[in-house]
Formats: sequence, C-alpha cells, structure tokens
Amino acid sequence: MNRIINDPEMVADETIAGVLKAFPELLSPTAHPRVLRATQQRGPGKVGIVTGGGSGHEPAFLGFVGPGLCDTVACGEIFASPTAKSFHEAFKVADTGAGVACLYGNYAGDNMNVKMAIKLAAKDGVTVRTVVANDDVASASKEDASKRRGVAGEIMMWKTAGALADESGSLDDVIAVAQKTIDATGSVGIGLSACTIPAAGKPNFTIAPGMMEVGIGHHGEPGVAVMPIKPASEMAGLMLDRILEDKAFGKGEDVAVLISGLGATPIMELYLLYNHVDEMLRSRGITPRHRFVGNYFTSLEMMGASITLTRLDGELDRLLGKPAHSLGLTVLGR
Amino acid sequence: MNRIINDPEMVADETIAGVLKAFPELLSPTAHPRVLRATQQRGPGKVGIVTGGGSGHEPAFLGFVGPGLCDTVACGEIFASPTAKSFHEAFKVADTGAGVACLYGNYAGDNMNVKMAIKLAAKDGVTVRTVVANDDVASASKEDASKRRGVAGEIMMWKTAGALADESGSLDDVIAVAQKTIDATGSVGIGLSACTIPAAGKPNFTIAPGMMEVGIGHHGEPGVAVMPIKPASEMAGLMLDRILEDKAFGKGEDVAVLISGLGATPIMELYLLYNHVDEMLRSRGITPRHRFVGNYFTSLEMMGASITLTRLDGELDRLLGKPAHSLGLTVLGR
Repeated sequence: MNRIINDPEMVADETIAGVLKAFPELLSPTAHPRVLRATQQRGPGKVGIVTGGGSGHEPAFLGFVGPGLCDTVACGEIFASPTAKSFHEAFKVADTGAGVACLYGNYAGDNMNVKMAIKLAAKDGVTVRTVVANDDVASASKEDASKRRGVAGEIMMWKTAGALADESGSLDDVIAVAQKTIDATGSVGIGLSACTIPAAGKPNFTIAPGMMEVGIGHHGEPGVAVMPIKPASEMAGLMLDRILEDKAFGKGEDVAVLISGLGATPIMELYLLYNHVDEMLRSRGITPRHRFVGNYFTSLEMMGASITLTRLDGELDRLLGKPAHSLGLTVLGR
Repeated sequence: MNRIINDPEMVADETIAGVLKAFPELLSPTAHPRVLRATQQRGPGKVGIVTGGGSGHEPAFLGFVGPGLCDTVACGEIFASPTAKSFHEAFKVADTGAGVACLYGNYAGDNMNVKMAIKLAAKDGVTVRTVVANDDVASASKEDASKRRGVAGEIMMWKTAGALADESGSLDDVIAVAQKTIDATGSVGIGLSACTIPAAGKPNFTIAPGMMEVGIGHHGEPGVAVMPIKPASEMAGLMLDRILEDKAFGKGEDVAVLISGLGATPIMELYLLYNHVDEMLRSRGITPRHRFVGNYFTSLEMMGASITLTRLDGELDRLLGKPAHSLGLTVLGR
C-alpha cells in the first residue's frame, strides 16, 4: 500500500488528532474521543445539528462542522458507523435545550446506532429527530427509495438545515427543511478504480483496468452498470440522465450542483466534468444557481466522481447562499 | 487510463472552460483563451499580481486568483509553461498603472517565456518585476539555491504579496515582501506513485510498488532518495528535518505550515501527516501559527504529499492572516 499511515488500525484516531491540531479554530474535542464539536459556540436555544458516519470520506463528515453547518459530529472507523455511544455524546453536546436534528446517511449500522443513541438521549431529556439521506438514485428503484443510500447530497441538507438553525428555526422547521432538501436531491457516482481500507490491506471490490462502474456506492457497493471507460461527456450524460429522470427535473427549474471527486481523481478532471454538466443542464432549460466542484465526499483513494443535483425553491436557494465556514465548505454569502 | 477526460490533447482547454462556468463570481475570461482574471475588479493604482504555470496542478495555478491573491493567471498545457504571449496578456490585464509583480516557479520554460513577455510588456509601457519561487530544498544544494524548483511555497508568496497589494503597497514593497516570503520558505515532497499526462498515455517516470521517493518534483523530477515506504511519522521526519536544517529554523520561531496532497492521496492521510508535523515542530520549540492542510498544489493523480514551512516575522504573520478568497484558498481574516 502506498499510503501515508502508521498502524493501519489507528488511521481514524490519528486523523482526528491531526484535525484537532490543524484546525482548532474550527473543531474542538469533547468527552468522547470520536466526537468533535464546532469551536465557535452557538447561542442558547439554537437547534443542534448533528451528523456522523464512517471515516475515509474526508472532508466528510468532520469537515462540515462549523458556523452555518453542523454543531457536532460522530466519527466511525473507516467505512463503519460511529457507535451509539458516540452519537449519544454528539447529541448531548449539540443540545442547547431546543432539541437536536440528526442528519445522516441511510446505512444499516448508522440507522441502528442512531436509534439506540436517541433512546439514551431521551433519558437525558434531549429530544432528537432525524432526517436520513437517501439521495443515491442508482442504489435502489424509485419505489424502494427508502432503501437508497445517502451520499454527497447530505452536504446540501447540512447546509440548508444549518443555515435555518442559525436563523433560530425551530426543531420542526429545521427537520422540515432538511427533509425537503434531501427529497429534492439526487446523486449518482462513477467509479474508475477500487480503494483499499488500510486495515484490510487490499480492495474489497475490483474495477478492471479500462472499465468503469456507474452508480457505484461510496464504499464500493455495486452500481447499475459496468462498462468500458467512456469520454467525460458520456460519463456526465450517464450520471445526469439518471438523476434528471428520477427526480423529474424539468425546463425552467433552478438547481444546485455538487461534483465531488472520490479521492484520487485529479481535480482538473472535476472541472472538466462540470463543463459538460453545465452545458447539459442549460440545454434542458435548467439553471445551475449554486455550484460546488471539488473533493467534498471521498472514498479513500477511489478514482471517479459523483454528481449531485438539488431542485431549488426560494427557501433552499436562500439558505444555500447564506454564509458558512468549515473545513470542507466555506460560503461567503451574497 | 482511468480518467475523466475527452480528447487527451484538450484537457487543459476543457478544464478552463469548466472553471469559467463553475466559478464566474471568481474567474473571468480575457482576450487570450489561456489567461483568466479575477472577476472582482481592483481599484485603480493597485499593483497587479500575476502568476502562471503548467496545468495539472489544480487548484494551482488558476485557483489562487481572487481578492487578496493574484489578479491574473496564464495557464499552460499539462506540466508545460504558458506561452510568452499568454504571460504578456496576463500582464496587460493586471496592470492598472502601478506595475505588475509576476510571481512564479523556477522552471526553464517559465523563465524563458516570462522574460520574453516582459519585453513585450515594456513596449506597452507596462512595468513588470518578478520573484521566482525556489522553495524545493531537495531539488538542489543550498549553494545552488538559484537552481531550485518552485513548488507549493508559491502559495505563501501569492498570499503575502496579494495582501500587501490590496493594502496599496507599491511595486517595490510587493516585490520585497514576495521575495522575503519565498526566502523564508522551504518545501519537500514525497511521492508514493507516478502520474500520467493524458496525452502521453503512460507515466514518464516510475515509483516501484512499496517504494517512495523523497524530494520528488511536481512533475516527477528525481528526488534525493528512493526507499521502502515508511510509516507516516518517519515520512514527516524525513521531510521536516531537511527543511528545518536547510532553512535553519530554530527554537522560539513562528512558522506557517502548508501540507498539500499530490492528487491521489486520501485527504485523511494529510490530516494524519499534520499530526506528526505539529508534534515535531512544537517539540523543537517552533510554533505553527498558520496551518493549511489539503489539496493545494497537486500533480495529477500522483500519490504523496509535500510539506512547506515559512518562517514568520510580524509582517508575514499579519499578511497571511488577511482575508482572501479564491477557488483554492479562502481566509476569513482574524
């Protein structure tokens, strides 16, 4: 493995240690070593925004904690859910009496541990409600949308819910806007190479040289089609068409677009991919009003990219444009 | 090649097209297709800051154009210098009558083309002065420091010079602070895998599996040592020791630290690497006052990372902390 690590079992812990030293103005420790909180204190009565997930997706998840985004984060082992205990701690730290919105991705381990943590928090008198991201339209049929995985679309709901919470939105309002955001969001990824969890030492899936996998998950979950690598223009079409059809995007609509590299794809190729996405959207009469292109939600050293689209109404447009500051996303505001 | 491209000869042009569509609030076109300017207009009389270099290092170079940083950028083919004509256009667009500071890296092609462009600009009555980054301490001996390559340390001089220009610094002052910054800056990289220029179709250098190359250049230029891959703690020591000795950093000093991934290394590993860098610096009585950790100056899909240190005095500390906004670097200010 050509990786910058020490003990393969300690990668997640040492990553957190590095983050706390590098970005103390953004992230601070809590009583639980796998739970971080925003350094900038929130006013009393603000709804707490919590997220959490496996490590290996950096800057997600810890990179989206900060003003205008999440308040605390629970960090799991690489590609594994945080424990119930860590979600519980994240809820406690985030609560200022107004309740907590836990906004996370649809994976069995996360669902189970969040559920357990909510019960523990209830005993402390902390109210927690959840929105579970299921934006990966390639991961199950539309009829089975509740089985779909959450991927980079989570960033969109952290942004809108975080902004509304900062505006003193109630827990009901914050949950409603997060749900509206993820319902309006679809994502599809393409993988061009596998990735290796350091403690495993070899990939737990393969993508043959010269091939690509459309709809691949963030942990190498099978996609919908394996085919020879196509030009970028065709990749963009394969991903976009699927999202546009599933979410029934149509002429005259405004969207937010997020392209994220999966970790090892050169950043220039993400810009090149955006060139096609922008052209294709505009040719269909769809206007990309917010544009995010970079490494936002990665999968270790997987090559490939994901495209995420969110249908905008006035409220989502406004909330996405509000200032936010974190390791993974800074918005200066308009 | 598992890459997101179309015609391999068109990657740089299509990257620029995508950037202009994705980030119109930051970057705008000029009369030359390979020259971009900051969208936010500068006041009259501000010294123009120009940079330029080969493509494939994204977000460098175009990602460091914006308020508090560079005004224009000339973009070359992948790993190749911009033309003299494009540097000339970049000078013309950046000049508001106060002269232009061209801050770029020490490579033969760039040196030649900048020199020619300065002659062309002189005929237009545009004064251009240069600072040539040579921060890669592994690329030549201290006695031959003028032969050293410029790498991620360029970001430090763009930041300080850009901030001083925004404060209405004169061309003399801006050039002086850029030179002071780069003189106070040392970098070393470690490569863990090669990279492939799309038009070539295969790597022009190799790093054997299980091996790493200390001091490797941003285009695969040979380093100072090839050895089996070490734990991250030892990698940090190998890079840091070389910089600390060369630049004679000592107890009680303040530094800025920049760790950049080379393109394909998981972002979590950069944080993990910072954990060691921070510990090692503090154990020597050196305080990291500004910390940048991410993909700032890449080499396509090379695996590995570079470490850059800048010795701070009061002026550099202040200028690094001033607000700046670009694709590759946003500083909110203190």
